[in-house]
Amino acid sequence: MKINGKSTRTIWLGNDGRTVEVIDQTRLPFEFEILRLSDVEAAADAIERMVVRGAPLIGATAAYGLALAMATDPSSKNLEWAYDRLLRTRPTAVNLRWALDRLRPRLLEAESEQREVIAYRMAAEICDEDVEINAAIGRNGLDLIEKAAATKSRKGDPVNILTHCNAGWLATVDWGTATSPIYMAHDKGIPVHVWVDETRPRNQGASLTAYELGHHGVTHTVIPDNTGGHLMQHGQVDLVITGTDRTAASGDVCNKIGTYLKALAAKDNHVPFYVALPSPTIDFTLSDGLADIPIEQRSGDEVEKITGIAADGSVQTVHIVSEGSPVANFAFDVTPARLVSGLITEAGICEASHAGIAELFPDRARRSN
Amino acid sequence: MKINGKSTRTIWLGNDGRTVEVIDQTRLPFEFEILRLSDVEAAADAIERMVVRGAPLIGATAAYGLALAMATDPSSKNLEWAYDRLLRTRPTAVNLRWALDRLRPRLLEAESEQREVIAYRMAAEICDEDVEINAAIGRNGLDLIEKAAATKSRKGDPVNILTHCNAGWLATVDWGTATSPIYMAHDKGIPVHVWVDETRPRNQGASLTAYELGHHGVTHTVIPDNTGGHLMQHGQVDLVITGTDRTAASGDVCNKIGTYLKALAAKDNHVPFYVALPSPTIDFTLSDGLADIPIEQRSGDEVEKITGIAADGSVQTVHIVSEGSPVANFAFDVTPARLVSGLITEAGICEASHAGIAELFPDRARRSN
Repeated sequence: MKINGKSTRTIWLGNDGRTVEVIDQTRLPFEFEILRLSDVEAAADAIERMVVRGAPLIGATAAYGLALAMATDPSSKNLEWAYDRLLRTRPTAVNLRWALDRLRPRLLEAESEQREVIAYRMAAEICDEDVEINAAIGRNGLDLIEKAAATKSRKGDPVNILTHCNAGWLATVDWGTATSPIYMAHDKGIPVHVWVDETRPRNQGASLTAYELGHHGVTHTVIPDNTGGHLMQHGQVDLVITGTDRTAASGDVCNKIGTYLKALAAKDNHVPFYVALPSPTIDFTLSDGLADIPIEQRSGDEVEKITGIAADGSVQTVHIVSEGSPVANFAFDVTPARLVSGLITEAGICEASHAGIAELFPDRARRSN
Repeated sequence: MKINGKSTRTIWLGNDGRTVEVIDQTRLPFEFEILRLSDVEAAADAIERMVVRGAPLIGATAAYGLALAMATDPSSKNLEWAYDRLLRTRPTAVNLRWALDRLRPRLLEAESEQREVIAYRMAAEICDEDVEINAAIGRNGLDLIEKAAATKSRKGDPVNILTHCNAGWLATVDWGTATSPIYMAHDKGIPVHVWVDETRPRNQGASLTAYELGHHGVTHTVIPDNTGGHLMQHGQVDLVITGTDRTAASGDVCNKIGTYLKALAAKDNHVPFYVALPSPTIDFTLSDGLADIPIEQRSGDEVEKITGIAADGSVQTVHIVSEGSPVANFAFDVTPARLVSGLITEAGICEASHAGIAELFPDRARRSN
């Protein structure tokens, strides 16, 4: 997608064909800065410090981290060391292990002098595959937006789409998941307007989603998370599209805290509520999202403190809760499948149910039984 | 209620029996400061600058403003001037006009040398009446908390109550509305724990509600507004109590934006959802809250900027939304009566419906037909 008018991915090979460049997402939305990763340590550090974030982008960065390691020293010993170093960066990130486990055996079975070339090629493949999956999600979701546009009484009225958190291209290599249908519609000339939940406590909506939509030229409005219900009551939302961190085989969706509240409001106001996801994030071992998915509790600092630009232009962090009051910070909630109109995947749209998912992914559903 | 261990109201007569003292609420929660109002201009200024806020407290301050005017110059000319000056401060505040209209005719019909005494007495009456109404709301709502406490499997486990925004004693003269049953329960030794929605965009929960609960010693936890649904799904909320700015004769409730989302979650999880209110705020001319109550849109500054304490201890305001992204700021939403378990009033608890309200307030309901 575009930043400052230029088509950009979140990760790419530098002009020297060896170093890897990423957008430093810790500086967004206040500064746009590109960080050059020259060795495996720099790649590991970028993952740890959340310079790169979002499961697909973390996986891609880890793959390039192994490639950087092989460029320096293609020995098996260094490969194992780099594998361990990268795996330790975010122990719970599924894509991280997946990417590393995809490269490691292929590199071990190759001659050491071939490892650098293979690693770079596989890292590039992982990036391109992610872009293709997200583009396919976008093409499938585009149908929903086109249909909504067709129902507008006045031609040219925008389709109003509400989204929560950042399931945008900044969390992937390109396109994003929830945002992919939106970018496709925009690029096709369909008028869209996005209500962007600011998404407390970490404000990924107000900072990242607003940033990326703005740079790509998509009309949008940032709203407090409290607002969506009111907008839906008054017919100002045609469609909700969110992402998901983990989806149960039943169609229950675990996503950023607050998603469930928007799904309830959508149901109460007959607004379609869709969730966009790459099918590998469906966990076929889970059948009851609410009972089976543990919800991470994060640092209270994220609730108590907030970072922004002060009057003098400096980036400042301020404490915003009454002193001495305890806070709680649940990172995710689970939206029951009964509230989800459908899942937008790279293979098509399906009902958020055991039957719907099994119909679209029969092999994976069968294997897990 | 208590601040720094001392029982306090939000407004009281100074030791000199003439000046009026109020808590400067613009400084909360960062500083506790008392402001002395020595003349009508100071009272008007305090209302305008939101040194005092909340309908009942604004009314009380306006009444004392007239008293201060009469202490300076009890002429009819000055009375009319002071009336106009005070009325202009917050043109849409219903209690402001109500309080001024209660004093004005009584003062005009009195001899000028009696006006000062009458005005001070009537202002004190308005304050005491507000305290008594809120205390009655508290006594009625206390029943609900006592019943919830009785259902706890382990004696001593706290009753978990979720509230949104600040319908606390700082918005009234004392007790508050939604908080009144909570303070009553706490003072009676019933273990309570309050989930305090931070209440974006103005964060009255994280600042004012957390501040007042903390100072009175009530156990509480501040949460992002996104959190309540998750807590209810997991049995961590026994009861929701909010306030309301305006209630339709049908029981539809207009309150701070986001209230509707919590009511939906309460319904979905069989959690009782109560609204506490002084009955004068029921508008018997409204029968469809959603269609009839216009929703105020406030400055985008409240969404884009936030104030807190910086690392150096100074109070700083920072800009938190991606630069150039538009924002929207709807101040209230309407919760349909079907989602409200009941209304807690000074006259008792009633069903949120035409019939329930008419049964508790037959005279007012009849007059409006």
